[in-house]
Amino acid sequence: MPYKYTYTDFQTKSPGQGGNWASLGDCLLMYVEPFFPVNPFSMQEKNEAKKLYRRIHSQTEPTQQKYQHDGCCGLFGHKIDLLDQYEKKLEDLEENVRWEQSDASLAGREVRAAFVSFKSRYGAAVALNIQQSTNPTQWVTEQAPEPHDVYWPFFSSSFMRTWISKLVIIFACVLLTALFLLPVLVVQGLTNLSQLEVWFPFLTSILTITFVSQVITGYLPSLILQMSLKMVPPIMQFLSSIQGYISYSQIVRSACNKVIWFTVWNVYFANVLSGSIFTQFSLFLEPKDIPARLAVAVPAQASFFIAYVVTSGWTSTSSELFRIIPFLGSLIRKPFAKCMDDEVEVPSFPYHRDIPRVLFFCLLGITYFFLAPLILPFLLVYSCLGYIVYRSQFIHVYAPIYETGGKFWPMVHNSMIFSLILMHAIAVGIFTLKKLPVASTWIFPLPIFTLIFNEYCRKRFLPIFTAFSAESLIKKDREDQNNAGMAEFYNKLVTAYQDPALLPIRYSAIPDSQSAPLLSAAEV
Amino acid sequence: MPYKYTYTDFQTKSPGQGGNWASLGDCLLMYVEPFFPVNPFSMQEKNEAKKLYRRIHSQTEPTQQKYQHDGCCGLFGHKIDLLDQYEKKLEDLEENVRWEQSDASLAGREVRAAFVSFKSRYGAAVALNIQQSTNPTQWVTEQAPEPHDVYWPFFSSSFMRTWISKLVIIFACVLLTALFLLPVLVVQGLTNLSQLEVWFPFLTSILTITFVSQVITGYLPSLILQMSLKMVPPIMQFLSSIQGYISYSQIVRSACNKVIWFTVWNVYFANVLSGSIFTQFSLFLEPKDIPARLAVAVPAQASFFIAYVVTSGWTSTSSELFRIIPFLGSLIRKPFAKCMDDEVEVPSFPYHRDIPRVLFFCLLGITYFFLAPLILPFLLVYSCLGYIVYRSQFIHVYAPIYETGGKFWPMVHNSMIFSLILMHAIAVGIFTLKKLPVASTWIFPLPIFTLIFNEYCRKRFLPIFTAFSAESLIKKDREDQNNAGMAEFYNKLVTAYQDPALLPIRYSAIPDSQSAPLLSAAEV
Repeated sequence: MPYKYTYTDFQTKSPGQGGNWASLGDCLLMYVEPFFPVNPFSMQEKNEAKKLYRRIHSQTEPTQQKYQHDGCCGLFGHKIDLLDQYEKKLEDLEENVRWEQSDASLAGREVRAAFVSFKSRYGAAVALNIQQSTNPTQWVTEQAPEPHDVYWPFFSSSFMRTWISKLVIIFACVLLTALFLLPVLVVQGLTNLSQLEVWFPFLTSILTITFVSQVITGYLPSLILQMSLKMVPPIMQFLSSIQGYISYSQIVRSACNKVIWFTVWNVYFANVLSGSIFTQFSLFLEPKDIPARLAVAVPAQASFFIAYVVTSGWTSTSSELFRIIPFLGSLIRKPFAKCMDDEVEVPSFPYHRDIPRVLFFCLLGITYFFLAPLILPFLLVYSCLGYIVYRSQFIHVYAPIYETGGKFWPMVHNSMIFSLILMHAIAVGIFTLKKLPVASTWIFPLPIFTLIFNEYCRKRFLPIFTAFSAESLIKKDREDQNNAGMAEFYNKLVTAYQDPALLPIRYSAIPDSQSAPLLSAAEV
Repeated sequence: MPYKYTYTDFQTKSPGQGGNWASLGDCLLMYVEPFFPVNPFSMQEKNEAKKLYRRIHSQTEPTQQKYQHDGCCGLFGHKIDLLDQYEKKLEDLEENVRWEQSDASLAGREVRAAFVSFKSRYGAAVALNIQQSTNPTQWVTEQAPEPHDVYWPFFSSSFMRTWISKLVIIFACVLLTALFLLPVLVVQGLTNLSQLEVWFPFLTSILTITFVSQVITGYLPSLILQMSLKMVPPIMQFLSSIQGYISYSQIVRSACNKVIWFTVWNVYFANVLSGSIFTQFSLFLEPKDIPARLAVAVPAQASFFIAYVVTSGWTSTSSELFRIIPFLGSLIRKPFAKCMDDEVEVPSFPYHRDIPRVLFFCLLGITYFFLAPLILPFLLVYSCLGYIVYRSQFIHVYAPIYETGGKFWPMVHNSMIFSLILMHAIAVGIFTLKKLPVASTWIFPLPIFTLIFNEYCRKRFLPIFTAFSAESLIKKDREDQNNAGMAEFYNKLVTAYQDPALLPIRYSAIPDSQSAPLLSAAEV
């Protein structure tokens, strides 16, 4: 069974003819795809062609008007046949795209990356796990994502470019996480009553009503904070998408990780150490004082976090069930995009938005269960509600666009270990504060044991998440040998990893099922 | 060309017949060795036999007395033929060892580890780099050391045993490094004049001489410290040897790493922060204060470290040339071990003793060059002296028992990066102390750039030190195919990795060159 690989930074133009590749023994190359660059213009033209095709399609429906006045506002001027005009435009575009895709245009423009298929899974794993060239940054191998999971923009980027963009993004994320509250606080400060009256003088009469002013002063700052927090997962996803990953699943995983630490910092620590941003930083500059300061600050926020579980946890789960924001979004979009797009795209589950939330409630449960056990029933209700709602959503609403392969579990593990260590630190601080030196001494081994357990899990379980073992690969390979459907699979493979810019377009004629690509442009 | 592997934790008793191994394609097994346990008694008996053989050998020399009186002090009693007695004993021992080595004794006592040879280097690299079983702790693969580099005691230890012993040893090392100075200070405190007079009353008359008392009070504490420091490399080597490594080279590398950080802590920080052990610790509990405290403490010790370069650096290099301690050792041993061992064993270079010293002088150079440039000429003299002396020693004195393979370089790199970061921290502190905020602000990017450079080197160069690339392996494999000497190599390979306890012993007869093992017991 073939397996797919991304070899970025190829030296030989065609590895099948190159020197070293022929000698890989069992794992001979079978298919190399694509060696042609993604031309951004070609992609733009294809999208334009698609739009035009849809418009023509809607024009051919009997209910639609066939003619339109040209000139100002479509009211004056002579009538023209819209259908003819669009079809002419579409043919021109297709001509352009075909020329872009032709050999004449592509000659000499090879990119330095390719998907490579192997005869067996084991052969592919060999090529993946062994460092290929003497210079480890020259031939970089990665496991290929599933065909519909490929994210093309960074497909052919070199090691240095990926590495530098990763550094820049990490720096940007740390900065965003650390300084996020500064602009939010400024905006919150601007929204006091007198300021609002200056900006919106027509509201003055309403703002003088006591009830309205109370709601606004009490609710507006919190609303601004919540809206800013809602923007974080998309921002983090955007940052991850320019970090150099070649698949959507990697982007979402990376964004999920970023959002977890963002939440821990900007919801947990920002509330616990409710001071300026520099007060928060100073905690980490004096590690000796961490337990003592946490012991004072954490219990003080117990009632806030119990309320947070209700306001944020219960609400988010319920609103998840009703999907209010997508509903509002589609309501607003509909009148403006009437004739454009009637296809409903099934959404994929936003792991990077919901996993951090669940993990944050676990953190709350672990750090507060001995300070304010009252939080536990609220969390229990949240968990039950979450289980029911998300189960229903997974079955009825979301469609997975990629296999997660359980790769979110290491993040869950890491955040649990962090929660436990934080809990130990708080316990040490509280026992010291309550003048129970024996108890705080007996707590000390706990974080050490937790870290040793973490280290053991890293040795015992983490390798399973990074690569498949020879044992399982060989077993699968043997099963494949007896599988009758393999010939069909090989046939599909030839076109599965085609660059969307190189897919044939046939909007003007009726597409025949023989030459139709496995992967339609809409999916990528 | 075969390559050697240690597969600890085999599940199948004989991998050649097992399920998974046959299907490894290109990298079929060629030879599996050994599946028998190292019996400690067998090894003891062999060593005893060797001693006896040497004694008999020395007896047969014409100058030696052939007879000895038995009874008290060998003066009374009847004469006995020593040669006959020894030969009888030797034959008995050999009989025992042969029985131990026979199949009857070994049946059913397979160990869970083996050296495995492969047809090609590439095939071996494949088995090394791919995780073998679904449980990553079950089949652990390691690159095999060279035959004379194998350290047998941990050869067949399981993953858990190795991991736990590693944890314990790391803990012991950290404890030793952190608390080393406590007992040394206690001993130094005991060696004041009045205490010495109580212990050694006969010295009272000498100790009252002013010159002697001055030398003792001035020199004795320093001597005690130096002697304690001299004991550290052997102690670290011992700790590394019980950490679960299967080769001497790994043990020395690990010990070298331990000694580097020991030296940095107990020579650099102990002198710079000349306070109690807890003052030193407190530095790391308040990271914010590190630059400020270093800025005060480091310049104060400049003259001490210049003197240290002379007293420790120049002296150690000169004494290395004369090899005084091994000379004294052999002088003392000779009268006691006259007839035993006349063979001179060529020593191997103690990397774990000398690399940390050289790196420590680099640390001194980097952190003091802008505080006390006077240290540079002294270091230059040390470097020149060191180059000449060690070059000569490498050529004329030491014989390498293993290839280091350049694997000490990553340690050198790490210690350089640490020195640079420390230097930046001191510079920030000093500029702040001198009220030059602009200068200290401009220093801040330097450690960040240093760390980014370090990260780049870890990506670009570190993989070369951990595994060979497919490119170089395949090239070597092709060269081997045309090599005429391969048949001989395969023949040698069969016995190269034999457990020393299983080697045939033939002291009583004349050993024939045909069946002589490649690896004599003395080397292991």
